[in-house]
Order: sequence, then C-alpha cells, then structure tokens
Amino acid sequence: MELSQIYAPVNDDLNKVESNIKEVSQVDFPWLAQLLSHSLGAGGKRIRPALTLLCGKFSDYQFEPLMHMATSIELMHTATLIHDDASDKSDMRRGRPTIYKLWGIDPAVLLGDYLFAKAGVTVSDTKNIRTIKLFSQTLMTISRGELNQAINSFNINQSRDEYIQRIFGKTASLFCLSSESGGILSQAPENVIQMLKNYGQDLGLAFQIVDDILDFIGTEEELGKPAGSDLAQGTLTLPAMLLNKMYPQDNPVKSFFEDRKKVEYIKLSIEQIRQSSIVEECYKVAKEYCALACSHIKELPDNPSRSALMNLAEFVVLRKN
Amino acid sequence: MELSQIYAPVNDDLNKVESNIKEVSQVDFPWLAQLLSHSLGAGGKRIRPALTLLCGKFSDYQFEPLMHMATSIELMHTATLIHDDASDKSDMRRGRPTIYKLWGIDPAVLLGDYLFAKAGVTVSDTKNIRTIKLFSQTLMTISRGELNQAINSFNINQSRDEYIQRIFGKTASLFCLSSESGGILSQAPENVIQMLKNYGQDLGLAFQIVDDILDFIGTEEELGKPAGSDLAQGTLTLPAMLLNKMYPQDNPVKSFFEDRKKVEYIKLSIEQIRQSSIVEECYKVAKEYCALACSHIKELPDNPSRSALMNLAEFVVLRKN
Repeated sequence: MELSQIYAPVNDDLNKVESNIKEVSQVDFPWLAQLLSHSLGAGGKRIRPALTLLCGKFSDYQFEPLMHMATSIELMHTATLIHDDASDKSDMRRGRPTIYKLWGIDPAVLLGDYLFAKAGVTVSDTKNIRTIKLFSQTLMTISRGELNQAINSFNINQSRDEYIQRIFGKTASLFCLSSESGGILSQAPENVIQMLKNYGQDLGLAFQIVDDILDFIGTEEELGKPAGSDLAQGTLTLPAMLLNKMYPQDNPVKSFFEDRKKVEYIKLSIEQIRQSSIVEECYKVAKEYCALACSHIKELPDNPSRSALMNLAEFVVLRKN
Repeated sequence: MELSQIYAPVNDDLNKVESNIKEVSQVDFPWLAQLLSHSLGAGGKRIRPALTLLCGKFSDYQFEPLMHMATSIELMHTATLIHDDASDKSDMRRGRPTIYKLWGIDPAVLLGDYLFAKAGVTVSDTKNIRTIKLFSQTLMTISRGELNQAINSFNINQSRDEYIQRIFGKTASLFCLSSESGGILSQAPENVIQMLKNYGQDLGLAFQIVDDILDFIGTEEELGKPAGSDLAQGTLTLPAMLLNKMYPQDNPVKSFFEDRKKVEYIKLSIEQIRQSSIVEECYKVAKEYCALACSHIKELPDNPSRSALMNLAEFVVLRKN
C-alpha cells in the first residue's frame, strides 16, 4: 500500500501542513531562504505529521492546533537531521548533498537552531501548554539520545537494552510526541492519549530498527546515501550487534571498531550480515514492535484512521527507504 | 558600582535563579552532567536574568513565573554561546577551554540543543503563551543574526546600519526578551512593557558595542580569550569598521580580510585602533545607546529597581569584561 493511500483520512489536511512547511522558506534574507528551501524541499515521508493528524481523529478533531503541531514536529525533525549531518560529517541525505556538505558546519549549526526556534514558535500557536512542554521535553530526550550515541561510538560492548533505549531517544520519542499530541489536541480522554502514545513509541522503535536494517541491505540509490553509514560513524545498530554476538571472537564489525582506519571491514560487515540469518532476525524484532504498536490501539473505535494506523505499521516494515 | 550592589533589589531571588541553573547539571548520565556542569558553572554576569527580575518590579511581582523565565533565558544564552564557540572554533571562553575545545564539535552541537530544549521546558513553566512564543521568536532572531554574521564574515563593505542590525540580532534581542518578559509576567500595562522592551534593546546594543571595543583594548586575562578574536573570525565590528573608514585605501583590517592567512595584521589592527581616537568614538556611541535606554524608563515609578536599571546602564559601559 502506498503512503498516500494510507494517509487518505487526512490527505487534504496533510497537504495544508506541507504548504505550511514550504512557507517557512519564504523569508527576506536570500541566503537563509536558500538554505531553508534546500532543507525543507527534500520531501521525506512526512510520517510524523501524518501521525499527529490521524491520532487527532479519535475525539474532537480540530484542524488548526493539529496543523501547528504537525508542522512544528516536522520542522523539529528537519532541524535534528541538519545537526546530525553536521556532527556526523555526512555528505548525503535523501539523495541530495547535506547542508553541511554544501555550506559547511557553521551554517548547518545555525540553520538547525533557526528551525528549532521556528518549530518552537509554531508549537506555541497550538496555545496548549501541555503539548508545548512535551515538545521541548522531547527535544531534550532526542539530544540526550544523540549524546549517548556519540559517547558510545565505536563501543562494541553495548547491550540490546541499551540499543533500544538509544533508538527510543533518537527516533521513537518524536513518534510518541506526534501521536500523543494528536490525542491531547483533540481533547481525547487520558486513556486514549496513553494508547496513542504507546502506539507511537512502538511504531517508532520498529521504524528505527528497519532503518538500521536498511543501512545494511539497501542500495545507495534506495537509501540516498552509502550503505553502511551507521557503521562508518561507529554506531552499533542491531544487525551489527547480532553479528558480533554470533562471532564474538572475530568479526569485521569488531575489527573495524578496533581500528577505524580499516574501512574495508565496513564492506565485509555488510556482506556477512546480508548472507546471514541476521536480517531476518532483525525484521522479526521490528515486526514484533509493530504488532505491539497495533495492539495498543485495538480498543480504539474502528474508524478509517485506526485502519490507517494499522496499515502504517505494516508499511514501516515493508518500506525500502 | 559592583554588580551585586546594582542587583540589590532582586539579589535573593537571583540567587534562587542561580541555584536553579546549577540544578540543570544534575542528571543521571555522568558525561552529560559533566558537560552541563562545565558550561553552567563558568559563572558570567547573569545580566539577563537580573534584567527579567528587575523589570518585574514595576507592577505585580510574582517570583515563580519570573524565576522560570530568568532561568530559561540564561540557559538559552548559554546554549547560543556553546554553538557560537563550535561554529567559530573558539578555544577559550571566560578564561576556560570551551566545550568545543575539550570534547569536539559533535558534543558541542548536541549539548547546545539539549540546553535549548531545557530552556524551552523551563519557559513553558511560566504557563504564559505570550512569553513562550516571544522566547522562540527571539531564538529565531538570534540564529538569523548569527547566519547574517557568518555570511558577512571577511566582508569589509558593511554599513553602520548593517552592523547595528547584526548586533541587535545576536545580542540586543535577548536583552529585549529579558526586560519585556519581566513586564509581561508581572502583568504590567502595555505602555510599561513597551518602555522596558525599549530599554532592553538599547542596553543590549550598548553592551555589544562595549564588547566589541573590549575585544580590541582588553587584555587576554580580562577577556578570558585572546584580544582580536572577532577580527580573527572575520567579524567586522564597529572599531574595525571605523579604522577602515579612517584609512579607506590601506589599513590592516582590509589587508587581513583580503588575505586571512596574514594573521600579523590582527595585531597591527589592534595597535592602530588602540592608538587612534576610535576607541573614544565607539565609547561615545555606546554611551548614547545607554542614555537612550535610560530615557525609555524615565517615566516609570522611581523605585529601587528603576535606579538599578539606571546603574546597570552605567555599569555596561564601565565594565572591563
């Protein structure tokens, strides 16, 4: 199923959010306009804003605050990607050169800050203190998760629990905010808000696990960046962790982490992981999180948005980029 | 007059803000705690939080929201300094090595993001949508100002107006937020809020002009970083601008901007500026802004806080660091 089909219950409103996002580039400072247009024009799946809108459909759907929320979440997401690319020194993202690559570290840091701020202005337009506070708390969680990833780079001794905690911080926390805020801004009862939040969390974990799998099995064309990028940056993801567990004495991930100059081990890691049962095993974990996500919303009213959320969980596992 | 004397009307409350700021370092992630403690423990003049508290004294002073506001403003200020140091590759700040110098660019970017987020959570505790929105709008202005500075680095052809606009963005906008929010959170009438805002703006401009003078006339010990740092980064400040105006055909600022490898021109610029009438001329401009700042609040009730604001304007010009 295509994303546009899944998004059907909110497609028109999602288009308005998209226009809102595009409008952010319209500033009277040509260089800033260019940087913004490059960052916001790259597209992307817009899963997070779609989540907010869909999760607003179980109670009193009010487009205006939901629109501000959805827009602000996508802006925050874009800002974190710009800062990630700057700190990882990544050249490519979604098949295009990054802000860091095109303009350097300084503009990347400042543009990210500008977008965090714009996201903050936008979320304040919801006029809902609870979601405004959640918004900043989520950014704290994300930054903390990224710091955790930075200090653990090239550390082979990380547990599965630590991995899950890390991907909660860097990815699932924002999925949580997206779904939970949809509930809050539609005045849903607390138990419904909790269900939506739990759905977002487990969907986000599945999403990141699949991302981590694709980084090993995808082609450069599909990924919009070279395969093995996580490993190259010293980030130990689930597939690499399982390879290390399978061959604890000697494996290319371990060899690369021990001597990061030996980049030939990256290619070797990719090959070994592709040829093993690890990919299948990781997909099994991702599917379990998706099933868990769906179980959280099974008691919600059976409306087109609930079906969309169920289909989205399926899409997250099947996607190729 | 010492700062602690100037702050007398709010000293006790400012100490509580200081404790609040210190508490931010208490997190259960040792590395993050260390980074936070290094950044927040360096002291600083705390002018911005003092401004918020003092400006809350002209109507219904309510410590709790003012405390959250003052804390969040200082956190935002610290975050911008961390990002500035990272993008400028500065080694020293307030006589101590920067986060960038000690831990590198990646932690500096992420720690700054964490502090922006923490500041956002803290400002949301004011529960006042107007100040929450102003907070993010100010961060937009600051980032835009810094981007403007980045694109104009090593550009000798900048007008005085452009300079004022730039220092409004990078410095005065946060002074504005500090003073204006004091008025808003104490439920002051709109005309009083406007007076406080205007005071903050002109005080902030004077503050930055003095900073720009000190960068040429201060010692490394006073500045906590080498003199001529702005010039070294290609930032054209008022003293350098005036030197270029004085000798348009040939001057060391121009020579350095034309060939930034020739760092000996930095020392030469410092010497020429120190020996000329430029320092005096720049101080005259700073004093004019301070006088303007004071004129905005002359119709406020003559209470200890108004005297403090007047004294603060004097301090800003007389300070040595």
